[in-house]
Amino acid sequence: MKHLIDSAMKRESCDLVIRGAKIFNVFTGEFEEGELAVKNGSVVGVGTGYAAARVYDAAGLIALPSFIDAHIHVESSTLSPEEFAALSVPHGTGVIVADPHEIVNVCGIAGAEYMHEAFSRLSVNGVNPLDICLQLPSCVPASPFETSGAVLGGRETEEEIGRDLFFGLGEMMNFPAVIGADGDNLIKLTATHAAGKIIDGHAPGLTGDALNAYACAGIKTDHECLDANDCRDKIARGIYVQLRNGSSCHNIEENSKAMNEYNYRRFILCSDDRNAHDLKYTGELDDALRRLVACGVPAARAIACATLNTAECYGLKKKGALAPAYDADIVLVKDVKEFEVCAVFKRGQLVAEHGKALFAHEKRYLPETVGSTVRVKAVTAQSFAMDFKGKRARVMSIKPNGIVTEERIEDVTCRNGDVVLSKGLCKLAVVERHFATGNIGKCLVRGYGIRGGALGITVAHDSHNIVVVGDNNEDMARVVALLEKAGGGMAMASKGVEDVFPLDIAGLMSSAPADEVIARTKAITDKALKMGVEKGIEPYMTLVFLSLAVIPKLRLTDKGLVDVDLFDFVSNEADA
Amino acid sequence: MKHLIDSAMKRESCDLVIRGAKIFNVFTGEFEEGELAVKNGSVVGVGTGYAAARVYDAAGLIALPSFIDAHIHVESSTLSPEEFAALSVPHGTGVIVADPHEIVNVCGIAGAEYMHEAFSRLSVNGVNPLDICLQLPSCVPASPFETSGAVLGGRETEEEIGRDLFFGLGEMMNFPAVIGADGDNLIKLTATHAAGKIIDGHAPGLTGDALNAYACAGIKTDHECLDANDCRDKIARGIYVQLRNGSSCHNIEENSKAMNEYNYRRFILCSDDRNAHDLKYTGELDDALRRLVACGVPAARAIACATLNTAECYGLKKKGALAPAYDADIVLVKDVKEFEVCAVFKRGQLVAEHGKALFAHEKRYLPETVGSTVRVKAVTAQSFAMDFKGKRARVMSIKPNGIVTEERIEDVTCRNGDVVLSKGLCKLAVVERHFATGNIGKCLVRGYGIRGGALGITVAHDSHNIVVVGDNNEDMARVVALLEKAGGGMAMASKGVEDVFPLDIAGLMSSAPADEVIARTKAITDKALKMGVEKGIEPYMTLVFLSLAVIPKLRLTDKGLVDVDLFDFVSNEADA
Repeated sequence: MKHLIDSAMKRESCDLVIRGAKIFNVFTGEFEEGELAVKNGSVVGVGTGYAAARVYDAAGLIALPSFIDAHIHVESSTLSPEEFAALSVPHGTGVIVADPHEIVNVCGIAGAEYMHEAFSRLSVNGVNPLDICLQLPSCVPASPFETSGAVLGGRETEEEIGRDLFFGLGEMMNFPAVIGADGDNLIKLTATHAAGKIIDGHAPGLTGDALNAYACAGIKTDHECLDANDCRDKIARGIYVQLRNGSSCHNIEENSKAMNEYNYRRFILCSDDRNAHDLKYTGELDDALRRLVACGVPAARAIACATLNTAECYGLKKKGALAPAYDADIVLVKDVKEFEVCAVFKRGQLVAEHGKALFAHEKRYLPETVGSTVRVKAVTAQSFAMDFKGKRARVMSIKPNGIVTEERIEDVTCRNGDVVLSKGLCKLAVVERHFATGNIGKCLVRGYGIRGGALGITVAHDSHNIVVVGDNNEDMARVVALLEKAGGGMAMASKGVEDVFPLDIAGLMSSAPADEVIARTKAITDKALKMGVEKGIEPYMTLVFLSLAVIPKLRLTDKGLVDVDLFDFVSNEADA
Repeated sequence: MKHLIDSAMKRESCDLVIRGAKIFNVFTGEFEEGELAVKNGSVVGVGTGYAAARVYDAAGLIALPSFIDAHIHVESSTLSPEEFAALSVPHGTGVIVADPHEIVNVCGIAGAEYMHEAFSRLSVNGVNPLDICLQLPSCVPASPFETSGAVLGGRETEEEIGRDLFFGLGEMMNFPAVIGADGDNLIKLTATHAAGKIIDGHAPGLTGDALNAYACAGIKTDHECLDANDCRDKIARGIYVQLRNGSSCHNIEENSKAMNEYNYRRFILCSDDRNAHDLKYTGELDDALRRLVACGVPAARAIACATLNTAECYGLKKKGALAPAYDADIVLVKDVKEFEVCAVFKRGQLVAEHGKALFAHEKRYLPETVGSTVRVKAVTAQSFAMDFKGKRARVMSIKPNGIVTEERIEDVTCRNGDVVLSKGLCKLAVVERHFATGNIGKCLVRGYGIRGGALGITVAHDSHNIVVVGDNNEDMARVVALLEKAGGGMAMASKGVEDVFPLDIAGLMSSAPADEVIARTKAITDKALKMGVEKGIEPYMTLVFLSLAVIPKLRLTDKGLVDVDLFDFVSNEADA
C-alpha cells in the first residue's frame, strides 16, 4: 500500500504510465483526459506528470477496464484452456466466471482441478493473463436419465464448495428441484450459502410464484431470459440478467430492450458457449459490447455491463474499474462503437497486442485424469441392430435451425432382426463411454439426412457419451471404434473413407493449437455435409444436443429414449 | 431455505403478509401491486393469495426497504443506545453503520463493546429492531495535541479489527497521514484490508494526487464533500459519496447536484451527528429522503440511496431490497415525498408503528466500564488564574453560526497574578478528565459572551475532556466540580445558582429517557442563554468543538493552545 500511495503522490516512480488515451471512468460514465498510472499491478491514479519505468503510447485510443465474462463453459470452445486464453485475452477479457460443467460431468472434480491449474500456469512475467473464477457445477449429472462420468450430489457439494478452488455454485439448471425444495438439491444450495459463495442460475421463462421460490434459494443470476419481460421479472426479484452472446444463442438484441437508465446496473454480459472460430474471428465481450451499443444502449451503460456491474454481482472488489487501488486490468480500444481491441494489460503487464497473445500458450498441462476418458465396451455392427416387434416406431424428428425435436410415429419393416431404413430415416445411438457398461441407447431419426455412412462425437450434453448417427451399422461401429482409439473427438466413416479429429482432453477439447482446431473442425464438418446432411443442420453441433434430456420433445441417452414432456423413458415401439 | 421456498410456492403458510401497499422495487425503480409475503424473517415473494399467520393491512401505503444510515456517531445524540434506537427505528432505520469514535476516545475498546452489547440486547420477540455495523474508530486520539482516554495505534488496530465485533474501520480523518503514508496509519489500513473489511473516509476537498493517494489506501466512502465538484471527484476515484443530514451539517442540497441517472448508484445517505431533538421531531433518513426528493431527485433514485446503494457499498447482501431471500426489513410510508413513516418491520416483526417503538427500551445496559469516567485532579478557583508576563495576549475569537475560530491579538492587564477580563473577554479552559493528570489548558476567548458565571461540558471532540468557559475562576471551578460529581454532563454555575444535567454514560450520553434528555438539554441551554451568551452561539455545542484541533484557527486542549494552521502549540502570550 505504501508504494501505491507514494506513487500516487509522485514520491516514487510508477511501473507503467499509459499516455494519450481517453480513460473511461465507469463510476461517472465519462471519459477523462490524463495519464493512467500503475504500480505493483494496481492503478494508482489518473493525472499528469508521472514518472514511470515504462510509458505506453496510447494516443487516440480509449482505455477501458478489462471485460469480465460472467458465464462461460470453456469446454464449448473445444480448445484447451491455454488456447482459449490465447484467443480470449486479446479480445479484452480479464476475468471469466467459468462453469466447468462439461468436463466435470466426464472427469468429476479432477476436471475442475485440471481447468483451474491449466489456466493458473499461464504467465507473463509472473502475471496471469486471465483470472478464472471457477464454479462448482451444480448439475452433475444434468438429468437422471443417463450415465455420466461423475455424480456430484449434495454430500459431495458440501465437501467441495468450501475449497478455495471454487468461487461459487454453477448454473442451477434443475429449477424444478429448486422450486420443489428437493432435499439433495437443497443441500447444495444451503452449503453454498454457508460458504458465503454465489449461486448462478438458469431458469428460462420462470415467473410468478416459481420465480419467487427460485430467488428464495438465493440464486443471483440468469442467462436464459427468453425476452425483455422475462428480464424485467428476474431483475425485480433481485436476479442479475446476463445478456448472452454465445455462438448459437444470442439474446442481447431482444433482452437489452428491458434495460433503462435506472436498472442498467443489474445487467451483465456473458458468452455461455462460444466456439473457437467465433472466439478468434468475432471476439468475446468486445463483440457483445458492439452488439449492445448497436442496439442503441449508450456506450457508458454497455461498458458498465461488461465491467463494474459484473464485478459487483460477483463481489470482485478490485475489478471492473480504472481507479486507485483497483487492479490495473486495462483494455485499449479504438472506439466505443466497434470496440476493436488494440492492447490488453493485466495488472499492468502487457499481455496482448493487436490481436495477439503475448504469453506462451503452446505448452499443455495435461494430467492423466483428463486423458483416456473414453472407455467403451467393444461394439460390433450388430450392436446397432434394432429389431421391432410391432409395426410402428416412435421416430425423433429433427428440425433445421434449432435444437427442439418432435415425435413422429412411422410404419417400419424389419428384416433379419434389424429395421429397414426407408428414405430419409437414420439410426441414432448413444454409447456409454465412461465405464464401458455396454449401455447403448438407440432410436430412429428423421430430418438429419446422412447417406452411406456415419458420424459421431464424444461431446454430448451433459453426460458426454458417444452420439453416433448413420444409415448403416458397420459405419456406426467404425465411428465408435475411431472415437475410442482417439480418446474422443469427432469422427466419420463412409464406404471405407474415415476421419477423426481427436478431442483428446476428456473427449471434449483438443490439445491442438486453435488454428488447427478451427481448420480441422471445418474440414471434418465439410466431409459430413458431403454425406448428405440436410440444409440447416450443423452435422456435429446438432448431435451434441440430442441427448440433453431437458429440451423437448424426444432425446436419446445411453439408457434409452426420453420423452422430455413426460419426463420419462418411452419405447421405440409406438405400439407398445 | 426449504421453508422459504415452500412458502413462496404456497405449500406452507407465511408468517406475515402485508396487503394493500404499493411495494417499491428498488431494482426496477417501480412500484408493484401485490402482497408482500414474509417467512422466517425473509421476504419470500410479491404475489397474491398467500395464507399467513398475520395479515397487516397497509391499504394506501407504500412499502420500502428499511433505511440504512451509512455513517452515524450515536453518541452525538447524547442518548443511550436503547433510547437512540427507540427514536431511530420509528423513523424507518433498519441498519446503522455506527462509528463509536467518541466513546472509544473515552473508554477505549470497552466503549465499543458497550455500544454493541447495548444495541444487541434490544428485542421484539427475539428480533433485534436495529442492526448495528460497528466500525473500529481509526483516530483515537484524533490529534497528537491532547490527552484522550485511550490510544488505538497500529498495533491495537491489528489486534482488534479482525474481531466479529467490528464491521470495518471508522472514518479515516487523518488524511495527511494517509497521503503521507505514515507508518502507524498504514498498519491500521493494511490490517483492515487483510481482514477483508471496509474503510470509511473523511477527506473534505481532497483532490488531484492527494485524492488518488487517499483512494489507493482503499478508502471507500466520504461524507465530507464540500460541494458538487468535490462529490464528482470522489466518485470518479471509486469513493461512495455519503450525503449528510446531520443536525448541524447538511450537504444534501448542494451535493445532490452532482447526482445524475448514471452515477446515482454511488450516492448513499447518512446522519453523521444528529441530536435527540432532531431524531425525535424531524427524523433520520426519512428526513434525508424528504430533503433529497425536494431537491428534485426522482424518488426511486433517492430511495436507492437510502437502501440498495448502501447495502452494496457495505456488502450487506440481504439488506436494501424487498425481494425473495432478502431480510424482511420493511418501512410503510404514506408517500414518497414526505416519507411519513407509519410502520416499521424488522425481519417480519412489527417493531414500530405511528412513531412509537414497540420494543422495551427503558432498561439500560450500563457496565462499569462506561460509568465513572470523569477523573479530575482537584481544581480550585486559583487553577484558572492566568498570569501574563507580557502585555499582549493571543485571543481565540469565536464567530456566530459556525465552528471556525480566529486569532486576535489584544492588550491585556494583569492584577494579583491573574488577567483582568475586559468587556466581552472570557476564559476558556480544558481540564483533562480521564487520568486526573491535572492538565489544564487555558486561553482567552472573545465572542462567547457569558456574564457572571461559567458553564462546561464533558463532550469535547474528540478527546472529551472538560471544556469550561466563564468570566470568573470561582464559577469555573464550581462547574468542574459539578461535572466530576455527576460523572459528566452539562453544567452551569452563576452567583450561587447551579445546575447540572448528567451525561452519565462516559460523560457523553445520558441514561435518562429521550424526552427528559431533550427537555433538560433545552432547560440548561436556556439558562446559559440567560447568562448573556451571544446571539448565534449555541452555548454548549460551541464548546464541544473548541478543542477539536483540526479545524482552523485556534483550538484549546488540555495541553494548551493550538494553532491548527501551524499544526503546533502556541503561547497565550502574543509577545512570546
